[in-house]
Amino acid sequence: MAVGLKALAELRPVSGVKIGIAQAGIKYQDRNDLTLFELCEGSNVAGVFTKNRFCAAPVVVAKEHLADAAPRYFLINTGNANAGTGSAGKQVSLDCCEAVASIVSCDSKQVLPFSTGVIGESLDAKKIINALPVAIENLSENNWTAAASAIMTTDTMPKGYSSQIDFDGVTVTITGISKGSGMIRPDMATMLAYVATDADIESDFLQSMLNKANRVSFNSITVDGDTSTNDACILVATGKSRFKLSESSSSSDVTKFYQALEAALQHLAQSIIRDGEGATKFIIVQVDGGKNSEECEKVAYTIAHSPLVKTAFFASDPNWGRILAAVGRAGIEDLDIESLDIKLNEIMIVENGERASTYTEEQGQAVMNQEEICISVNLSRGEASHTIWTSDLSYDYVKINAEYRS
Amino acid sequence: MAVGLKALAELRPVSGVKIGIAQAGIKYQDRNDLTLFELCEGSNVAGVFTKNRFCAAPVVVAKEHLADAAPRYFLINTGNANAGTGSAGKQVSLDCCEAVASIVSCDSKQVLPFSTGVIGESLDAKKIINALPVAIENLSENNWTAAASAIMTTDTMPKGYSSQIDFDGVTVTITGISKGSGMIRPDMATMLAYVATDADIESDFLQSMLNKANRVSFNSITVDGDTSTNDACILVATGKSRFKLSESSSSSDVTKFYQALEAALQHLAQSIIRDGEGATKFIIVQVDGGKNSEECEKVAYTIAHSPLVKTAFFASDPNWGRILAAVGRAGIEDLDIESLDIKLNEIMIVENGERASTYTEEQGQAVMNQEEICISVNLSRGEASHTIWTSDLSYDYVKINAEYRS
Repeated sequence: MAVGLKALAELRPVSGVKIGIAQAGIKYQDRNDLTLFELCEGSNVAGVFTKNRFCAAPVVVAKEHLADAAPRYFLINTGNANAGTGSAGKQVSLDCCEAVASIVSCDSKQVLPFSTGVIGESLDAKKIINALPVAIENLSENNWTAAASAIMTTDTMPKGYSSQIDFDGVTVTITGISKGSGMIRPDMATMLAYVATDADIESDFLQSMLNKANRVSFNSITVDGDTSTNDACILVATGKSRFKLSESSSSSDVTKFYQALEAALQHLAQSIIRDGEGATKFIIVQVDGGKNSEECEKVAYTIAHSPLVKTAFFASDPNWGRILAAVGRAGIEDLDIESLDIKLNEIMIVENGERASTYTEEQGQAVMNQEEICISVNLSRGEASHTIWTSDLSYDYVKINAEYRS
Repeated sequence: MAVGLKALAELRPVSGVKIGIAQAGIKYQDRNDLTLFELCEGSNVAGVFTKNRFCAAPVVVAKEHLADAAPRYFLINTGNANAGTGSAGKQVSLDCCEAVASIVSCDSKQVLPFSTGVIGESLDAKKIINALPVAIENLSENNWTAAASAIMTTDTMPKGYSSQIDFDGVTVTITGISKGSGMIRPDMATMLAYVATDADIESDFLQSMLNKANRVSFNSITVDGDTSTNDACILVATGKSRFKLSESSSSSDVTKFYQALEAALQHLAQSIIRDGEGATKFIIVQVDGGKNSEECEKVAYTIAHSPLVKTAFFASDPNWGRILAAVGRAGIEDLDIESLDIKLNEIMIVENGERASTYTEEQGQAVMNQEEICISVNLSRGEASHTIWTSDLSYDYVKINAEYRS
């Protein structure tokens, strides 16, 4: 059902990053569910994690380890989120890190654990530990595409992105993968995403670029408004290319790299929406003319979370009254409804707070029949903007979430 | 599909209130869609209305008229909300009030208009005006039950409530009706509700009791988080009984009347949830142990609006991890997850932030198989509480809202 998401082409390796894959049989049988990243020494790592107060055991451990040591390994399992599992769950994450460390001879704090899947069930450390030798054995720079599949849960398609940028003859690669389909309303980061570059970038600067790009990518998507307990987005700079970037680099280099990074994160984030649970539409919600970007974001999310708007899009019904009602309840103080405009793609549907005189139901229907639709709202009270991406609400969303776990 | 909602018994008349019904053919054919309330002279009226910035034309007019004159008539049509219709829509509402006033010889400001139905389509005043003579002709004290049906849109069952209270031998009656099924997340009032009593209560005191009872009834329900453009809840005191209530009445009389009023409003509000679009479960979300009622409300609505929680309830799946994740993302500062308890009815499922040691999946399943389920969350950080009522998210919710309008 993924909307406009192409089959994943082979992803470019990033020098300094190897990936190993294995079948641990955690929940799914006969498919890869364990992924191990190995980073070369000297790699710098930045990360953003869920702000859900109930962050899962692996998130707690990964944040602690990231603060204490330079990461060399990421260990990711799917099928079980190891969330809501208390101190026993934390011990499972620590045991798994310890197991990796003892085989590869590093400090266990150099291992970051990640889990995704069902919440509230015990994760069996043994299954993971038993599968580790296979994952370590097949560590390779060419496993990005396989890893994109190995980290999936209810995703219907693997998600990845590669690009190369040239800096005066030096080629820099950015490659990343992401997973996620439901429980998507990232609050700082989304489900799981791993992005690496061979540029040489110091940790603090790497983190600040990640924060900035994350706000306009993973923090600007929503399927159902449910922020996961396990969200994480990790950015690695191995430094294996001859390109070094820092805050004192030329602003054109910084901009060029940042734009490439933002494009990677946006592609990965949008891929999650295109593969949103039950999605039949890819919806861009763009709010302009706000006093500040916060109020634009508030209006955008109120539209994107409205079950009535989402079901109207599923039905391809140009029921713009529901969009208007959502704007009206977004809690924007002193909103002047008489200066509000709403467009669907290029069709003006609401002008100055009422049905546009030029609008016809046929025009609205023609737009709604498309798979990708942009709702543009102009609040006409300032210069700020914000854009987010979302999906519709279909029978299949209910089916997937009523049947998941069983 | 209504959950635990009994067929509506005949409602008790309220002396001083007559109701007339007619078929105006606005959207529905062969059913009543126009309702006219006539209040005796001397009646006092209180009202609460939607806080949606895009409040509909009739809401604007009703608020203005209520501020300017003592209401004698309420004119309610279903099938068209007359919302998002601009100045032309306002003129339609004014024309309808004028038409009533000219037939019954009152000031048009003494007529309050109400509309419910599709948003953004022009309402034809002529259809209403043509049907007025029939409505006026059959004005009767015994039409409450018929009116409960005449104001329905996607409701599957009419909703009403009657009670009588004895004050030292004087019998006071409270009777009310409500409608609503989708676009339910009242912000000040819900879709439409009309409650009348024959007690003699001065307007300001009537309004203050309505505000108080409204907060724990219509303002504590949600189907889909979508606040309607047309919400209104109206309370009438005709003064026809010999019972007079004021702020200087004995506190036992005030409490007794207020509790009866609150019970009426809660019954009407809960009826809307029981008949929520596609509802298969009636869910009570009770949050205790908060620092203040606002944070309890925030947690309760985050649970009640979570599509993942709602689909799990539809599936009768005791997937408590989704409830826990919703609590975690509710935005409560410094929430200590290790002191949080969650119960489903009497079954402790989460204790001190993790799965209760006594909990079994069978216990959870037994609760989830029921039609009425209470989710109790204890934040264990204060004395405040808040309770709200909601429904699940089913295939039929999607079906109803994908097909409505067509």
